[in-house]
Amino acid sequence: MAETTYAKGLEGVIAAESEVCQIDGARGKLYYRGYSIEDLAEHASFEETTFLLLYEKLPTKDELDDFSQRMRAARGLAEPIQSMIRQFPPAGSPMELLQSVISYLSSSVEHQIRHSTTCNCRDTLHQIAQLPTVLAAYHRFREGKSYVEPRSDLSVGANFLYMLRGEEPTPEEGRIMDICLTLHAEHGFNASTFTARVVASTYSTCYCSISAAIGALAGALHGGANERVMDMVEEIGSKDMVDAWLDKALGERRKVMGMGHRVYKAKDPRSIVMEKMLTDLSKQRGDASLYEMLKQIEKGFRVRMEEKGKPIYPNVDFFSGAVYALLGIPRDLFTPIFAAARSPGWLAHILEQRKDNRIFRPKALYAGPEPRAYVPIEDR
Amino acid sequence: MAETTYAKGLEGVIAAESEVCQIDGARGKLYYRGYSIEDLAEHASFEETTFLLLYEKLPTKDELDDFSQRMRAARGLAEPIQSMIRQFPPAGSPMELLQSVISYLSSSVEHQIRHSTTCNCRDTLHQIAQLPTVLAAYHRFREGKSYVEPRSDLSVGANFLYMLRGEEPTPEEGRIMDICLTLHAEHGFNASTFTARVVASTYSTCYCSISAAIGALAGALHGGANERVMDMVEEIGSKDMVDAWLDKALGERRKVMGMGHRVYKAKDPRSIVMEKMLTDLSKQRGDASLYEMLKQIEKGFRVRMEEKGKPIYPNVDFFSGAVYALLGIPRDLFTPIFAAARSPGWLAHILEQRKDNRIFRPKALYAGPEPRAYVPIEDR
Repeated sequence: MAETTYAKGLEGVIAAESEVCQIDGARGKLYYRGYSIEDLAEHASFEETTFLLLYEKLPTKDELDDFSQRMRAARGLAEPIQSMIRQFPPAGSPMELLQSVISYLSSSVEHQIRHSTTCNCRDTLHQIAQLPTVLAAYHRFREGKSYVEPRSDLSVGANFLYMLRGEEPTPEEGRIMDICLTLHAEHGFNASTFTARVVASTYSTCYCSISAAIGALAGALHGGANERVMDMVEEIGSKDMVDAWLDKALGERRKVMGMGHRVYKAKDPRSIVMEKMLTDLSKQRGDASLYEMLKQIEKGFRVRMEEKGKPIYPNVDFFSGAVYALLGIPRDLFTPIFAAARSPGWLAHILEQRKDNRIFRPKALYAGPEPRAYVPIEDR
Repeated sequence: MAETTYAKGLEGVIAAESEVCQIDGARGKLYYRGYSIEDLAEHASFEETTFLLLYEKLPTKDELDDFSQRMRAARGLAEPIQSMIRQFPPAGSPMELLQSVISYLSSSVEHQIRHSTTCNCRDTLHQIAQLPTVLAAYHRFREGKSYVEPRSDLSVGANFLYMLRGEEPTPEEGRIMDICLTLHAEHGFNASTFTARVVASTYSTCYCSISAAIGALAGALHGGANERVMDMVEEIGSKDMVDAWLDKALGERRKVMGMGHRVYKAKDPRSIVMEKMLTDLSKQRGDASLYEMLKQIEKGFRVRMEEKGKPIYPNVDFFSGAVYALLGIPRDLFTPIFAAARSPGWLAHILEQRKDNRIFRPKALYAGPEPRAYVPIEDR
């Protein structure tokens, strides 16, 4: 008899082996290729993290210099891309723009993958380097400002802020932005990474695979939680409104954004690093009101959940929106920044998929009408 | 103990229920929502087939008139899209262009899906109507020709040929092109349709989901077989070279393109319709040399396989490339035409996914390094 049961959303179903990322949800630990996210956030740049994800080892000094130089050389936007950004409708989502640009860029390089199973995408690094640049240009153009040429003496995080603002950020700001990217660079299978692997399994290009993954991350069920945390903060208004808001929201069974995580039963390790950066930034700005309000939400939520016997901790999205806001980044760029940050992880999974590939082609369980006769249109 | 076995490529794993399409591989039958592909090819236009796929029933005359009118009104290309096409690098693949254009187009409409789980994509029909138009414009621009405005009195197939050539095709040609689209409109789960569903499962837009699916179809393991059939025909050269070529190719264990199908153990029903159209076209052209050569390949291959006890039949790709070639369509547009034809199927699956959605998030089996200490860069 044919099988008729299945797991919706493939929940619990193993889709592939992977060496990229280990998540120990019970202990609240996250490792990229064996290295803890705390160590990487403290010691490694986003470029070093990208090298680790793509080459499966930490780089030597020479390797990192060469790699950073290549990534930085790939930052500038060609004229057709600038024109796509300029003409992009104001009501559009920058996620759609990113998705569109990345597949368009695929046409600008020769792809080995079309001729063999080998992929040369670690050579171009376009797919990673151009995402922050496109975002910065997008924001400037919509504000009526001009394109800022990238600088090759700045880290990925610092260069993004520089191109967005037209002014060099402080070293602390640059470092914080770079760590934010590192924290989001990889997180195992999820809908976007799985999408990247499914597309790559057909031997499509890395660009087209990453473009597809951006499409998945754009969905409301996937990216965007940190934007909604800031929406919530705005709705609450101030610290002293938090408790009344929580009582009302929980009474109405509304979801409190940025709390809990499907995988982490302990604290999300990225949220700890993110919170530290938020306190640093708040001190630098001499204004801790946003941080204090978030802590009030966290505390108030925990107390109310403990009454129900459910310890729930803030996840990485709970603090990241506030960090971006203090860095002067508009809210609708938060998810696109997530895409830029995740691109090394997607690329690592694409490369891994190709090493031992089988095209993804699951079965459907047919539940539609039995064969029926065609009725001529005049008899309908 | 944790599970450690899995099906590579999710082979044999049910990923979802579906009512869109039934494939009876043993009997060589294909049904869209219960209607046989033979009936649809004979009686229904591509627009009627699209209505059936999207609305789950055959349209009345009024419904079809209204639907066709809406699809036809959505054909024209806005200036930013024309400019993306004009500036597209000559070495790029038109599949990359299609993928890029479709996510870019997502920005030009307001999406209900961003605000609720309801989707309004059956209203715009952009994602289906613009694909043939983009292709026609792409080919004309690269030949240094001007954009041909779409005509709303022509079927999808006839209008495509008209916009490609700048001249109205004969009614027979228009009908053949329309049937080619119908034959490819839907075929159950495969890597591209599965991609569309995974992306849609995040509540991303239909545009972004279809863009992602195009990325999957672009892979060498998925689309493109009919292009390679014509490469093979070109390599063989003429009918009297077929037998020598087959002996050599089979001796070298080379794959004979367009033969056999993963799902169909009997004859692919689409290949029967396609062969009929090829004989009609060959008669109209007064030149059956291409058809006779293909039949010689089919016969020679069958004889050689029967010796090994394996009956293998031609699939839809075996004849479709020759049909397109006789219609004057350049070879690198064959797979993009497949994408245009499949877009109603993708959209039907996206709508179905949303009706009873769970985000696709399978598990990975971790096979990487155990947690290890970070080594400072100067000690590596």
